[in-house]
Formats: sequence, C-alpha cells, structure tokens
Amino acid sequence: MLSELGEFDLIERFLSAFSNPSRDLVIPPGDDCAAFRVSPETLMLVTTDLLIEHVHFDLSTIHPRQLGWKAMAVNISDIAAMGGTPAFGFLSIALPKRTSTAWIDALAEGMSACCTRYHVTLAGGDTTGSLHDIVINIGLIGFTSPQRCIRRNGALPGDCIQVSGPFGGSAAGLKLLALGTPLNPLEQSLITAHLEPIPRVACGQALSQLTGVHAMIDVSDGLIQDLGHICHASGVGAIVSAHSVPVYPGIPDRIGRERIDPLNLALSGGEDYELVWTVSPECADAALASAVTAGALHAVTIGVIGEGQSVVVMLDGKPLQLARAGYDHFKP
Amino acid sequence: MLSELGEFDLIERFLSAFSNPSRDLVIPPGDDCAAFRVSPETLMLVTTDLLIEHVHFDLSTIHPRQLGWKAMAVNISDIAAMGGTPAFGFLSIALPKRTSTAWIDALAEGMSACCTRYHVTLAGGDTTGSLHDIVINIGLIGFTSPQRCIRRNGALPGDCIQVSGPFGGSAAGLKLLALGTPLNPLEQSLITAHLEPIPRVACGQALSQLTGVHAMIDVSDGLIQDLGHICHASGVGAIVSAHSVPVYPGIPDRIGRERIDPLNLALSGGEDYELVWTVSPECADAALASAVTAGALHAVTIGVIGEGQSVVVMLDGKPLQLARAGYDHFKP
Repeated sequence: MLSELGEFDLIERFLSAFSNPSRDLVIPPGDDCAAFRVSPETLMLVTTDLLIEHVHFDLSTIHPRQLGWKAMAVNISDIAAMGGTPAFGFLSIALPKRTSTAWIDALAEGMSACCTRYHVTLAGGDTTGSLHDIVINIGLIGFTSPQRCIRRNGALPGDCIQVSGPFGGSAAGLKLLALGTPLNPLEQSLITAHLEPIPRVACGQALSQLTGVHAMIDVSDGLIQDLGHICHASGVGAIVSAHSVPVYPGIPDRIGRERIDPLNLALSGGEDYELVWTVSPECADAALASAVTAGALHAVTIGVIGEGQSVVVMLDGKPLQLARAGYDHFKP
Repeated sequence: MLSELGEFDLIERFLSAFSNPSRDLVIPPGDDCAAFRVSPETLMLVTTDLLIEHVHFDLSTIHPRQLGWKAMAVNISDIAAMGGTPAFGFLSIALPKRTSTAWIDALAEGMSACCTRYHVTLAGGDTTGSLHDIVINIGLIGFTSPQRCIRRNGALPGDCIQVSGPFGGSAAGLKLLALGTPLNPLEQSLITAHLEPIPRVACGQALSQLTGVHAMIDVSDGLIQDLGHICHASGVGAIVSAHSVPVYPGIPDRIGRERIDPLNLALSGGEDYELVWTVSPECADAALASAVTAGALHAVTIGVIGEGQSVVVMLDGKPLQLARAGYDHFKP
C-alpha cells in the first residue's frame, strides 16, 4: 500500500520503469526543476506543482485571490532555487459545477498579479470538471545558462550554509488559520506569510552570478528536510547552529491549546519559500551582500557543511532532537 | 455558477485577467499546443492535460497499464496535431493512500511503454496524496520549426478536408465498457480504441513538410466539434459528406438497450485521436499519399472548406441534424 511507501521512495520506484533519458536532459528528476539544453547558451528549466483541495488548501481559510497567487508563486520559487528566470506558465484546473464565476475571477486576478510581478506569461493549460475537489496544476518554464544554473548536488565540506530570510512564519500562520479565531495584526502577518509567499527570484539570480555558490534549494518541506536534500544529493553532512537560524518575528508561544516552540517551527515547519544555499568560505561575505542587495534583507549564515551524512542542529553545545522532520505526503 | 458557463467561455474569461504576453509566445492559448521561439530555427510546443478519476476514467474499466499509456498518448496527440516531435514529459500525480504498489507499477509500465514508443523522456513531475480521486496531469514539451508548425487557423475556402483514419470506435468502446458484459473480439477492438489510442505523430510530421497543408487538429472532442474549432479559428465554414466519413469497423447497431447510429458516433463521439487537416486542392493527393506512407492507411478526403461559419454534414443531398455536438466539461 502507498501508505507504507514514502513520497521519495514512490518517485524512485516510478522512475525505475523509465529508461534511456534524452542526452539533452541536463538535470533529471530529483532537483527543484528539470533542465535541458535548448541552445549552447541556454538551459530551459521546468517545474510543476499539483495542489488539491482539502490536501493543500481549504476554501474556508484561503481567498481565491490568495490561492491564485500562491499556486503560481510556489512554482516561481522552484525556478528561483536554481538561479533562473521564470517565463511561461501553464495552468491545468478542475472545477466542480458549484464553483461561482466570482470565485474564478478572483483566482485569475491573484494568479495574474503574481505573473505580472515576476514577468510570467500564462501560455496555455487545460480546464475540466471535477466531482469533488478543486485541482490546480501549474507547470512553469524558465531559463538560465549552463554556467549559472545552481543545483542541489554541489555542496562541499567547509561550505557555509546561508539562508535568505526567516522561517516558521508560514507554519504558525497555518496553525492560526486552523484555529479560526479573530486575529491581531501580528497574527495576520503570519497568515499572510502562509497564504501569500514571496519567491526569492532576484536573490537566486544574484547568487547564480557567484562561482562560489555551490548548491541551492527553496524551503517548501521544512528547513532541515530541504537542507537534508542538499546533503543527500551532495554526499555531505551539515551542522546548523540553532541560535543562528532566523525565526519569523511574532510567532506566539501558544496557539489555541497548543504550546509552540518557535525554533522548532522554524526548523521543521515548511512552506517558507526562502532559499538555502551553500557557499565557499571565501565567497560567503560576497554572497550575503548579493542577497541583501537583491532584497533578502535578513540573509544570514546558519552553519557549515561537513563530512558526515545528516543534518545536525546544535543548541548550546548539544545536538537538538527535532520533534518533526518535515512533510511527507504519504506518511501517516 | 460554472454550470452556466461553457468550457470555452470559462477559458476566455480566465485569460482576460492576464495581460502583456511575451513576444516570444508565437502561439497563445487556444490551439492544441502553445508555442514559443527558443531559437530562430526552433519552436517549442507545450501541451498539458488533466485527468480526474470518475470524470475521465474509472478504475473498474481501465487497467492501470492502459491508463498510463493513454494519459501520455493524448498529450503526444496534441504535439502530433501541430506536426511536432514530442520530447519531454512531466507527470503530476495525486494518489489516495489505498493505492497499491502493484497498481503504481502497472501505471508506470504503461506510461513508460508509450514514452519509449514515441521517444519521450519523463523529465520531472510532482507527487502528492489525495483524499478522494486519483489525479493525473501530464505536461509535454515537443519541438518543430516556425516554417513547419501547422495551426488551427490557416484553413482557406476551397481547401479539401482530410482525416487520418476512422471515427466512432472509441465512443462505441466507452459504451461497451459501461455495459460491463463479456465481449467478443470485435467488441474488444472497440474498447482498445478507447483505452489505448495511437497518436498520429508520423502522419502529423509528414503533413508538416507540405506547404499546401493549412490547418490541423486532433480529434478529442468529436470530429464535427474539432473541425468546428478549425473553422472558428480560420473564419471559414465546412461541408462534410457523410458517406465519405470513415466509420470505425465493427460498431454494432445496438449496445445493451441503446440503439446506436454508427455514423452519428463517428461524427460526434470523440477521443478518436485521429488528425483532421485542410489542404489546397492541388496538394490534396500528395497529402493523402504522405499520410498513408506515414502509417495512416485509411486517410481520406471527407469534405471541403467554404465561406460560411459552421460545419454542415450533407447526407443524401440534405443537411444532417446531429444528435450531439461533442463534449463540454461544464455543460449538463
């Protein structure tokens, strides 16, 4: 049964049925985007993301304008994670008959705003009916050059680990949404972090100009899990200093009846859409300066890459036991 | 409400929220594929197709191997309809926890067989859980040249209308599946036409070499409706001779308690994935010869393009009233 397989096992199992990939496929499945050469100077990046009602979003807690924005933004973030420039979007959407035209108009408005902001052209798609849930799949095509494309698998022992901004705000926002109580402005900002993420396109592009930046990923599953993807792909380990991890401002220590550890939320929460990258020590300062210039005002170093295989978070001289290692769609 | 809007109205309404398409977008939404220039000699074609359980397929009537084949084949057919060469596929899939690994393996096997047959590399995707239905979205990228790309909007008055093969088999197969009774070999062939369509890639490519071929589409919604899309996009009308339309062999005149008109099924059934194209009279014979050489052994002329706006089917000197004009996902 699927529930006994993890998401990443499933992908590996599925792909094993396919053979003989094209030689033009420069980056096969497993990175933020697939990439293939379309000319000697141009790599095309392709990413796709599937959102299902009741799994990824709930109509009672997200406005269609926000859903339209977020569906496009999370794909743009995957292009940003490779240092690329997003260009053409494709929308597949399944809608139940009950859907109102006002709802559709608001969805289009939010998606269009995100496309305009990041210079993406909606170039095609597919529409169909649905019996139960709303389904939204976006495919996004972007461009970079073979020299500038940053993958997950280039991290080297001794690299500094840096991030583009704070973590945990989106996960706190999700918990507040589930609670459904009236909100003060601070709580509202956490919810905005969850519903209207800002992909770090300019930051990713700026870092792709630096030869010392070796690996990069965007944080969708959770900081530690996504850093783990870099380590796994690169065959290295990571040591993160807990006190260095920027925690989103305003996360309360209690949401409803649940006691909240903001640090734990920052390490494992997910859907932050900040970038994490590794960079040679000589280039570390230049990378932070580039990130800040590109709008990631709170970019900071959070640890170093080492020999091992796992991600260890050190707090006051001791390794931290994490409560939850990030998100897997098929694990109970 | 959505049920008051048609599928094509919905697409138009949605797209009106988006502005300023990129100048590299050579073919905007509305054709079989979007197309954009990636070099002076190369057009990239992109198509995407969303399949939802209980809307597009039912697990009780399709083997996962067939579903994997069909999901890929219908996208390949869209590339074929523009004369292109399919190259890279992207799979987004949502699976309920109840899904067995044997089912997933069979799906992968069928999809892989289709990819191997048409030289498509599975290059990426997304996997997620689902509460209710299985969802499969495939995005497919192909290539052609600006000179060879055949669109929907080039049909000219006086053109001959030609098709690559017979129609109605898939729709008859669907009715037989719904019946659920034991099948003889002839009935089995109709079901295979529905579950394992053969996209006409070589035929589309061969026709794209001929300057006289002006417009082309693949038949997914139904012959008359899809020919209507060519007419609408080209600002022309069409006259089809009913006796010329090739009807799939072996369609019975009764399925269960339903009386079947094979001609009506051929005109309106849908999911045939044969190609329909228009071609100048001087080039009509060469086009048929090319199609036959490319494997479309029963390619034939079925009518002519005229001045009007609509598709008229003539039977024994009189215009035929069609029982059903093709499929719309949102109409009751």
